[in-house]
Amino acid sequence: MNTIITISRQFGSGGHEIGEKIAEHYGIKCYDRELVSLASKESGFSQDIVENQDERKVNSFLYNLAMENNMFGYNIDSLSVLPDTQKIFLAQFDAIRNLAKSGPCVMVGRCADYALSDLDNCINFFIYGNMKTKIERIMKKYELPEETAKEMIIKKDKQREGYYNYYSAKKWGQADGYHLCLNSSILGIDETVKLLIHYIDAYENKKLLSVFGR
Amino acid sequence: MNTIITISRQFGSGGHEIGEKIAEHYGIKCYDRELVSLASKESGFSQDIVENQDERKVNSFLYNLAMENNMFGYNIDSLSVLPDTQKIFLAQFDAIRNLAKSGPCVMVGRCADYALSDLDNCINFFIYGNMKTKIERIMKKYELPEETAKEMIIKKDKQREGYYNYYSAKKWGQADGYHLCLNSSILGIDETVKLLIHYIDAYENKKLLSVFGR
Repeated sequence: MNTIITISRQFGSGGHEIGEKIAEHYGIKCYDRELVSLASKESGFSQDIVENQDERKVNSFLYNLAMENNMFGYNIDSLSVLPDTQKIFLAQFDAIRNLAKSGPCVMVGRCADYALSDLDNCINFFIYGNMKTKIERIMKKYELPEETAKEMIIKKDKQREGYYNYYSAKKWGQADGYHLCLNSSILGIDETVKLLIHYIDAYENKKLLSVFGR
Repeated sequence: MNTIITISRQFGSGGHEIGEKIAEHYGIKCYDRELVSLASKESGFSQDIVENQDERKVNSFLYNLAMENNMFGYNIDSLSVLPDTQKIFLAQFDAIRNLAKSGPCVMVGRCADYALSDLDNCINFFIYGNMKTKIERIMKKYELPEETAKEMIIKKDKQREGYYNYYSAKKWGQADGYHLCLNSSILGIDETVKLLIHYIDAYENKKLLSVFGR
């Protein structure tokens, strides 16, 4: 196993659970909210502040200017001109890239696919689902009534979409931005995981064959 | 096998070949350009005229009005108010729905996923690819220089996108409009076909289990 797997996901689609199960299968780690703690350490902001900004965008003209001039390899201290939200994003971006250097793992959300887009050993999945199944999952998980669960799904996905489209050069949920996109409601979580493992194995075999010149 | 498989595809992604191979595996038929002949028979227009309109949209205020009032079950003769392009689309729509009644098959392009969206035994795939691989495929297939192949890909996809977005209520290439979306350039055609067969088998098993109440 030599591959980093990123999972972008609609809220309630089971992307986190799928990530955990893939990681378990390969004996590697799955990072989701852990990316928030790492960004907190990296940036010097408290965990609370970082969590509050998690996957939310804030517009900034200054930020765009800074990104255009120096995408990677920035120095947090030199970015004092940027709003905190942007500093947190950049710290997370950096935490994701550092993690990727330490070996194969699964990363869920936080534009990880975009942060790692220059790597050639990274698979990007997008997981979505039927509204009915997503509502059932969120009702159960957070003990919410149906209407509240539905509102939460719509709101969270709007936030994720806004965050992703703002910070990345791609479009959230546009199929050709990912290696594979899958509706997890059709097969259910376990069969979806099996299919994704089939894909990862085929991807790794193909890499091995190309190394041996076939 | 009791499933109808539709394949939407970027030009040059190998969607047709993938469709043929899936059909071969299950011993069923694959329809692609054949849908043009069927629409020609259905509409009374010559094959030439129908081919010329294939997967191209033409705007029409009258058409929208007609569609809003009666989506399915129209009568071609009663639609004399519509432009020919719309009649051809509706004839193809009808040909697709009739074909689906006669048993499992694979259908490539022509908004088949949308035409069959009320069926519960229909899987919708979207196949795309890396520009480099698509160019190589089109150069070889049509004996074209690189630049011409690239222009053809961009133009054809623009046409397909326009056609799909105009006639359907969905967005071409938006992941959550399909059961599964896949970049065929990563694994290559044969491994992509194997993965899709894995998906179809899992889908059929799941259906069987739900029939037996599990």
